[in-house]
Amino acid sequence: MIDSLIAHINKFISLDEADIAEVKTSAKAIVVKKKEFLLQPDEICRSNYFVSKGCIRLYFINRSGQEQITMFGIENWWITDYDSLETGKPSQYYIQAVEDSEIISLHKKTLDELLVKVPKMERYFRLILQKAYTASMRRFQYFRDQSDEERYRQFVALFPGFVQRIPQYMLASYLGFTPQFLSKIRGKPESRTRNQDNTDVNS
Amino acid sequence: MIDSLIAHINKFISLDEADIAEVKTSAKAIVVKKKEFLLQPDEICRSNYFVSKGCIRLYFINRSGQEQITMFGIENWWITDYDSLETGKPSQYYIQAVEDSEIISLHKKTLDELLVKVPKMERYFRLILQKAYTASMRRFQYFRDQSDEERYRQFVALFPGFVQRIPQYMLASYLGFTPQFLSKIRGKPESRTRNQDNTDVNS
Repeated sequence: MIDSLIAHINKFISLDEADIAEVKTSAKAIVVKKKEFLLQPDEICRSNYFVSKGCIRLYFINRSGQEQITMFGIENWWITDYDSLETGKPSQYYIQAVEDSEIISLHKKTLDELLVKVPKMERYFRLILQKAYTASMRRFQYFRDQSDEERYRQFVALFPGFVQRIPQYMLASYLGFTPQFLSKIRGKPESRTRNQDNTDVNS
Repeated sequence: MIDSLIAHINKFISLDEADIAEVKTSAKAIVVKKKEFLLQPDEICRSNYFVSKGCIRLYFINRSGQEQITMFGIENWWITDYDSLETGKPSQYYIQAVEDSEIISLHKKTLDELLVKVPKMERYFRLILQKAYTASMRRFQYFRDQSDEERYRQFVALFPGFVQRIPQYMLASYLGFTPQFLSKIRGKPESRTRNQDNTDVNS
């Protein structure tokens, strides 16, 4: 399982055998069942999680009592609450498995030590964070400049496989509208999704 | 002017004399007048900009023809369009001086060379990006879970000096509402801003 992380790191930097050994010592492979939590509100986030297989989501409960999904992590993505991880303050977020998943966990303390032992890992995380930050800026722009329907259609065009994979109520939460609205636009003839897909959105 | 950048870097990592010399060789100090552009749409973003003094904003024109401010950069903040900077694709953004400003510009090519010559700068930029990404996640949460008025009041509480410093129409754009709405809530008795402040919002 950790080999998928090594392969991902090697896309950005070159690890030698000694570096790989350090990464393997630092990382912990865990298996999480669908709906299992890696983090819940009021807990301190202690690890950064790399998705080796499966899907994880980060969300909070808004004051209307609804889940608001901030982020999905699928294969080769890191997911964490950086705010809580860095400051040691309790998190406001849930991190939960959407599917049975294989996760590589890097504990904050171990991660800090790894960055000292293998300084080139700073470059890897700098590049990862740059990509994440760029994606978050782009997402923010979409929220400010697209209609709900446009945002949906663009997301489907960009990530067709992913849209088929997750419960539709989660997709609605991520894109910022109601499951009812999502059902409505999925039913339209120009919809790019499969209209015959009757997946239970609450499964 | 470059000393302010050196001081900022030294808050995160320790530069020795040789490192400082490399940073000084790589960085270019520029002075920009209020309203001057560092980037405009269809141009490729070539540099990352550190604000030594003044204030810079990053914005795009939405399809209603209105400015949507994505980010402000004040003293000790970096501002760039990472998407264009990394991919070499034309930007959709403007980067413009809100005040007469002193900027340290690091050209992409020079920055890449600096990261090879002084690898510990990877750590500095990793930490900077982590802060920026955390702030962007937090901002996204506020947009999804706060009313316009709450968002305004929280921003004023967090950055009282900054609110007095920028034109109010820019603050409205950044916070995602109209200048009219901003005037209205600023006039309320519970407003934490100075009601007697009659700054022309379009100055």
